[in-house]
Amino acid sequence: MHLRGSKIREVANASLGKSDVLAFWFGEPDELTPEFIRRAGVDSLAAGETFYTHNYGIAELRAALAAYLSGLHRPVAVEEIIVTASGMSALMLATQALVGHGDRVVEVTPLWPNLVEIPKVLGAHVECLPLDFSPAGWTLDLDRLLSALTPGTRALYINAPNNPTGWTITREEQKQILDHCRRLGIWIIADDAYDRMWFGVGRAAPAFLDIAEKDDRLVTTNTFSKSWSMTGWRIGWLVAPSELAVQVGKLIEYNTSCVPVFVQRAGLAALQSGEPVIRRTVERYRRARDFLIPKLNAIPGVEAALPAGAIYAFFRVEGMTDSLAFCKKLVVDAGLGLAPGAAFGPEGEGFVRWCFASSEERLADGVERLAQALGAQR
Amino acid sequence: MHLRGSKIREVANASLGKSDVLAFWFGEPDELTPEFIRRAGVDSLAAGETFYTHNYGIAELRAALAAYLSGLHRPVAVEEIIVTASGMSALMLATQALVGHGDRVVEVTPLWPNLVEIPKVLGAHVECLPLDFSPAGWTLDLDRLLSALTPGTRALYINAPNNPTGWTITREEQKQILDHCRRLGIWIIADDAYDRMWFGVGRAAPAFLDIAEKDDRLVTTNTFSKSWSMTGWRIGWLVAPSELAVQVGKLIEYNTSCVPVFVQRAGLAALQSGEPVIRRTVERYRRARDFLIPKLNAIPGVEAALPAGAIYAFFRVEGMTDSLAFCKKLVVDAGLGLAPGAAFGPEGEGFVRWCFASSEERLADGVERLAQALGAQR
Repeated sequence: MHLRGSKIREVANASLGKSDVLAFWFGEPDELTPEFIRRAGVDSLAAGETFYTHNYGIAELRAALAAYLSGLHRPVAVEEIIVTASGMSALMLATQALVGHGDRVVEVTPLWPNLVEIPKVLGAHVECLPLDFSPAGWTLDLDRLLSALTPGTRALYINAPNNPTGWTITREEQKQILDHCRRLGIWIIADDAYDRMWFGVGRAAPAFLDIAEKDDRLVTTNTFSKSWSMTGWRIGWLVAPSELAVQVGKLIEYNTSCVPVFVQRAGLAALQSGEPVIRRTVERYRRARDFLIPKLNAIPGVEAALPAGAIYAFFRVEGMTDSLAFCKKLVVDAGLGLAPGAAFGPEGEGFVRWCFASSEERLADGVERLAQALGAQR
Repeated sequence: MHLRGSKIREVANASLGKSDVLAFWFGEPDELTPEFIRRAGVDSLAAGETFYTHNYGIAELRAALAAYLSGLHRPVAVEEIIVTASGMSALMLATQALVGHGDRVVEVTPLWPNLVEIPKVLGAHVECLPLDFSPAGWTLDLDRLLSALTPGTRALYINAPNNPTGWTITREEQKQILDHCRRLGIWIIADDAYDRMWFGVGRAAPAFLDIAEKDDRLVTTNTFSKSWSMTGWRIGWLVAPSELAVQVGKLIEYNTSCVPVFVQRAGLAALQSGEPVIRRTVERYRRARDFLIPKLNAIPGVEAALPAGAIYAFFRVEGMTDSLAFCKKLVVDAGLGLAPGAAFGPEGEGFVRWCFASSEERLADGVERLAQALGAQR
């Protein structure tokens, strides 16, 4: 089995030993986990919650997730919810439960590489359907996607709001895809990690979970990482038809057994008191986005679309055809750390990803470095 | 894919709503994680270590593991060590890296069910080689095992000291197995979770890691769970040839990404200051074992061997042929919670597992309940 190494890591390695690197390459909020969330974890440790717990997650957290998701989407029952050791783990578990050797799956790309590699670990064949770029935004060719979802296809993976492009699927597209997949018995695996990192109307981006019924072939995966600045805690969840949830529960036993109780207590605190955190964070990211995108477009040769969600600018650099070499040179020469578009599949070549979860001051410094570097190349 | 549900869980469910259940069914130390280990986790959270970290584990912990393992076994380099989100995760990762669809693997049983199920998740065929029971102890038919390790076999899984039997492999058996596997290119996956829960001579049970060279096809998996009473923390490690370790590092990205830094800090504290904890724990378990086994053998119809390692009595009950029904009846009628031997494969039928990581008072109460229940059946 050949697994892709991370091209982002390759760029980061190129800068080892170099000081004054301004890095925007990783997809991570720039703030600490809020104090009240950390305190919930500490209190749990002090109370001695250091033993095994249920594969599915502690009852209090599953109940809180049911209430949270029912408020955002359609009513979701506790039996449909499984707590997982990260959104990543949720995706691996869903894939183990649904995808086998020789199965065909379809993914909408550019896409964070993990989602493309996971089905390969299970021996599946992954077909990629590229989004279209224009400076007005990334768009999905729906007819082309539906044509790719042929009878016998096992699953469609969609990450929207999308990492790296910020593309967000529309309700109408979701309806047609769901309808098509219902007819052909194709599973939809929706990676909703950025559902709250959403700059449109409403509290969350359009989700399949809004329109799907309880028995539809839909698995929604999510994480506490982005919404509550909890990347380092490794906790997420998935929503699945209750029969599949039971299968996933068994698979958890064979993957990680359970999520530490003190981590789950932190997740519970996030759900119970974290809405102000999300509101503040989204406003901060919105300002960062609105600051960064025009500045990028003002640089000759750069084309950046305004993303409707997620925390990235994924922009085109005119004439650039080797994003890995470009980003390595950028970090070595200009001390600017960006992620090469090719890290997100061949469809991402010619592009660069910039995580704007950062302060305006850092962003402005970065833009200046990029402008100078590109100017020097002319 | 059909995955076994836990028969232990089935017995536990039979007792739901019943008070006064004396449970010895789960394999878990009975004590809290020591305070100095919990404090290391708390201090890390207070210091704000809530971000992503390296797939392979933090450098300090890998270095400490290298020193710890080099003290117990042969010299082990940092490059051979990967920190994982539990011993379970280490086993899943090793299997993902080595075992594919249609591969044949061999396992020595009775065995905790997870180790048998994990290769099946990857589509492998699992062949079980049963240990032999006598009241003098569990033994391995080495010739039969070597015959089962045919050319083309992908891997041998061995858990010793063994859960559930307490069987421990001898150095001579290890040498012959390693020699045979070297000749045929068969991987050995050694689950060493109970290596320190050892009542023989020396600080640890005999390990393949003592005798294998750096480039031998050996993966050793381990956990902080048993030795340092950290079951709920979900942290473990594996040792593998450095090239394979790189592959496992990539797979971690697609499974869990990393272990929380604050959990790794707790693991580091355990390694740095945990030897007295292990000494005290092993002495406590030795006394519990020496208390329980003779008392079990004094019950008419019960045959229990003295285990050399691990934390279980796995004993035969004369005339009992349905351990699941037996254990369900035992918990309902006598309020005694034990694990049915059939949970550890068909080779375990007729036996019952009792975790003796408990106080003498609780053990004595349990023995009395068992004696009464068996007496009532006569």
